Amino acid sequence: MTLSKQEMPNQSYLFETEQALNCEIEEQVMQLFASSSQASSIEEEIDEITNNFSQSFLSKSDPNTDIKLDSLVSNFSQSQIPIQPANFESYLKYLGNNVVAHSIHTSSPQFIGHMTSALPCFVRPVAKLMTAMNQNAVKIETAKALSFCEREALAMLHRLIYNFSDSFYAQHIQNNLSTLGILVSGGTVANITALWCARNAALGAKDEFGGVEKEGLAAALDFYGYKGAVIIGSELMHFSFDKAADLMGIGTHRLIKIPTDSNNRVDIQALRQAVVESRAQNLLIISVVGVAGTTDSGGVDSLFEIAEIAQEANVHFHVDAAWGGPLIFSQQHRHKLAGIEQADSVTIDGHKQLYLPMGIGMVFFRDPHKAGAIEKQASYTIRKGSFDLGKRALEGSRPGMALFLHAGLNLIGLKGYEFLIDEGIRKTQYMADRICTKPEFELLEEPDTNLLLYRYIPEPLRELVDKKQLTETENKLIDEFNERLQKTQRQIGRTFISRTTKTTTRFGKEIPIIALRAVLANPLTTEEDIDAVLNDQIQIASEIAWHFDC
Amino acid sequence: MTLSKQEMPNQSYLFETEQALNCEIEEQVMQLFASSSQASSIEEEIDEITNNFSQSFLSKSDPNTDIKLDSLVSNFSQSQIPIQPANFESYLKYLGNNVVAHSIHTSSPQFIGHMTSALPCFVRPVAKLMTAMNQNAVKIETAKALSFCEREALAMLHRLIYNFSDSFYAQHIQNNLSTLGILVSGGTVANITALWCARNAALGAKDEFGGVEKEGLAAALDFYGYKGAVIIGSELMHFSFDKAADLMGIGTHRLIKIPTDSNNRVDIQALRQAVVESRAQNLLIISVVGVAGTTDSGGVDSLFEIAEIAQEANVHFHVDAAWGGPLIFSQQHRHKLAGIEQADSVTIDGHKQLYLPMGIGMVFFRDPHKAGAIEKQASYTIRKGSFDLGKRALEGSRPGMALFLHAGLNLIGLKGYEFLIDEGIRKTQYMADRICTKPEFELLEEPDTNLLLYRYIPEPLRELVDKKQLTETENKLIDEFNERLQKTQRQIGRTFISRTTKTTTRFGKEIPIIALRAVLANPLTTEEDIDAVLNDQIQIASEIAWHFDC
Repeated sequence: MTLSKQEMPNQSYLFETEQALNCEIEEQVMQLFASSSQASSIEEEIDEITNNFSQSFLSKSDPNTDIKLDSLVSNFSQSQIPIQPANFESYLKYLGNNVVAHSIHTSSPQFIGHMTSALPCFVRPVAKLMTAMNQNAVKIETAKALSFCEREALAMLHRLIYNFSDSFYAQHIQNNLSTLGILVSGGTVANITALWCARNAALGAKDEFGGVEKEGLAAALDFYGYKGAVIIGSELMHFSFDKAADLMGIGTHRLIKIPTDSNNRVDIQALRQAVVESRAQNLLIISVVGVAGTTDSGGVDSLFEIAEIAQEANVHFHVDAAWGGPLIFSQQHRHKLAGIEQADSVTIDGHKQLYLPMGIGMVFFRDPHKAGAIEKQASYTIRKGSFDLGKRALEGSRPGMALFLHAGLNLIGLKGYEFLIDEGIRKTQYMADRICTKPEFELLEEPDTNLLLYRYIPEPLRELVDKKQLTETENKLIDEFNERLQKTQRQIGRTFISRTTKTTTRFGKEIPIIALRAVLANPLTTEEDIDAVLNDQIQIASEIAWHFDC
Repeated sequence: MTLSKQEMPNQSYLFETEQALNCEIEEQVMQLFASSSQASSIEEEIDEITNNFSQSFLSKSDPNTDIKLDSLVSNFSQSQIPIQPANFESYLKYLGNNVVAHSIHTSSPQFIGHMTSALPCFVRPVAKLMTAMNQNAVKIETAKALSFCEREALAMLHRLIYNFSDSFYAQHIQNNLSTLGILVSGGTVANITALWCARNAALGAKDEFGGVEKEGLAAALDFYGYKGAVIIGSELMHFSFDKAADLMGIGTHRLIKIPTDSNNRVDIQALRQAVVESRAQNLLIISVVGVAGTTDSGGVDSLFEIAEIAQEANVHFHVDAAWGGPLIFSQQHRHKLAGIEQADSVTIDGHKQLYLPMGIGMVFFRDPHKAGAIEKQASYTIRKGSFDLGKRALEGSRPGMALFLHAGLNLIGLKGYEFLIDEGIRKTQYMADRICTKPEFELLEEPDTNLLLYRYIPEPLRELVDKKQLTETENKLIDEFNERLQKTQRQIGRTFISRTTKTTTRFGKEIPIIALRAVLANPLTTEEDIDAVLNDQIQIASEIAWHFDC
């Protein structure tokens, strides 16, 4: 990676050249760091270029370019770090043409297939401010006001969920012995953290026994006389629960997945039965899990009933409301979450329906001391009795994402979030109605919130579908067609809908069928956009060769 | 949270008022989202205000304001989400006065106590661009070019560590079956991920047995005939290893912490012995851990020797190079990491010595298929055979932090990073020399890299220290004095040094002593800044009442 000796006439020349090169590198690098006017003029230039990228990116309505993945594979095949610092103008040009140009317009009004949305305009300047401040939220010594600001923002959402008294919040909001919530990088870490707390609290230190934290899971189960540990929840639990069961040494086979009804809600009788059976088999139930907004279809479990079961069995009740949690902002829809206030822990994602950028997961605790079960210290920084947020967290160093959360809660407000939630659900109903009126589509279920599952039915099969005379083989063909339709639509890139596999009862048995999946959360998505997406699918379908034809 | 009925004269009035309010809220919220010129003018206004915040923040040299934590506690005591969206100008004013003003100037040249630094100027505009693009790196459908860009950036660092052939990289860089590295939120998640992969690979599926992933840790240890599992490394391992041992069900007692020598390097003989004993006791060694840059003092273990031990025992060798990894950029210093290329996995933090913003941890794998041990799928999105980066990761949805990494590697380059690393170590030597010449200070050890441990000696005790006649009681007084000195310095806020507890041999035994801890990574820190920090400590010390005086 240095110049080879053959290229150099002699050592002294080499030395002089190297010295000159080193000076040049020092100058180039220090230019990037210096707080002088020279540095800020470079920053201004970069800012102008990247602002142009952002503006042109945000103004495009096509979700995607039609570049093939093969081209991207060959565009990004460099494995050597450039030796010299690149000129920033050339690099930015490269970035614009190769990365920005072929990124997904997750904020496009016609990109209604994943849990992304347009974001409020304040998040972009705040991102720059957060990076300028570059606080490390792990400890007070690197995040002073921000540590308190984060606790305040988390307390606000805690109160929205649990609605305890003024005196409760006065006591806990800034009490360093209390943890109302933990800000993490995303819903997966939030769910893992909740289950980790639940496991450690259930298998804590006692007498001479150090608890699961110190002695490990096998010893702790032994000590407490359990034959194993399980987590019980709906078959539609997010795959982060598989990760948690694996990571925590429980094993994914011990993640008991209960069937759901036609509305994607966990079967309460079966759940109750699983709890009874687990106890009969002397298995520790680490947590019963309720899902408030399945990733697949937005279905919300009957949290109230699950809470009752958990309470009767005296086990931890966790609610994964990563997606659906913000329904609680809506007077019209919050009843769907009834029972969430009984949860021992709740996951909510800021980067989903709080309309904040990627990287904001949260877990809330009913009992402000529950997170004590995972507390750790370190001599160099994270001290007992301090306000260091890193004491009770899976992660260590982390950015000051609380800035976004605090800004969102203030600049959008309770009523603003209510409006956004209500709008998403209203538009989902509009889309469901449109699908029902169009012969090309079959609505697979009435939407619970703002996710929608449907599929395209090729013309020759429509009558059979209507008459419920479809054979299993024909159904498979519809599956294949929908997979092709979704892939083609994604590749063309004008509009976007995702796809999933939905278990449904057909032909007298449970079978998986391919479903098209719409997510309606983007406030910029209009009824016209929804029509455009459906029409685009109809058009693409007509162009896909269909071997039943002719 | 709505107006109470008593305040309302009649229902129709209520209805009209509510309708008017709702329209106003809709308008306010949609203004924040709309891509119209109105929205972009709001964004421009916010940008201008936050730019001013950033500039004034970055130009301040004092690390800290002297605001008391009590004041912050009362400043952030609001537990109700504001009902109406706040006016953005008032909110920003509040943010500036309450959060920005009392945040830590982690980039200050005289804040040399933690692993933060000034950042290159391109990171701020790139932060805004990243947020504008808001890619979700979990899957191709929400992060197209970026998924490939991330793999390229990780491959570049992989090559710097392992330096395999061109053909190796051609084969793996964009091969969706291969994982050269995983981008995560920080070093803690990186370390946990590495150990998770190591555990699952060691206890995989075999014959009818589903492996630890499916069957859990107790069953897997049983199946393979182990009596337990351990992780072995230096006593100075980062506390993320305690988290990993707890979380993974191993138990922190099974995290075997080997003593270190006076240079903070793990005692190789003792480590070898622990490996032999663990095997004799039929314990699975999930990993032997080498530390490349302890958090406390920057010490680097003898990786080459640890690699040998791991190879002989045929166990996973993980190197936590979160801090010290970038020494590999330096021709002068990379020899300190010799043996890292033998590691099965390596953690490096981008937000430390790659001078990138918080939130960029990485774990690299020698074997591109090792991370297959933690692979998971989900029907709605993360599909086998796809390029979805979320298939093999602890986290799910996550931001496109790869943009910073890719930009850093290109805009700073190999030689630029070499310069930054060399400078930090050079300035550390300068500071060590200054400490040695000043009677007020005692250097606690020669620095290995760019961390420095020292302490202040109150005047009446200096002679005793010089003559090595200090008693244990007097030593305790020095501890107390240094703790007070560090806390006072932090509270005054002109300069900043952190503190830690260092185990050292004194009075014929191992005792913990309080140490002042300097971290020299900020390119803006000059020799004058170092002198200023030391002089500030001397001045503060002279003002602290010292009960030995008079």
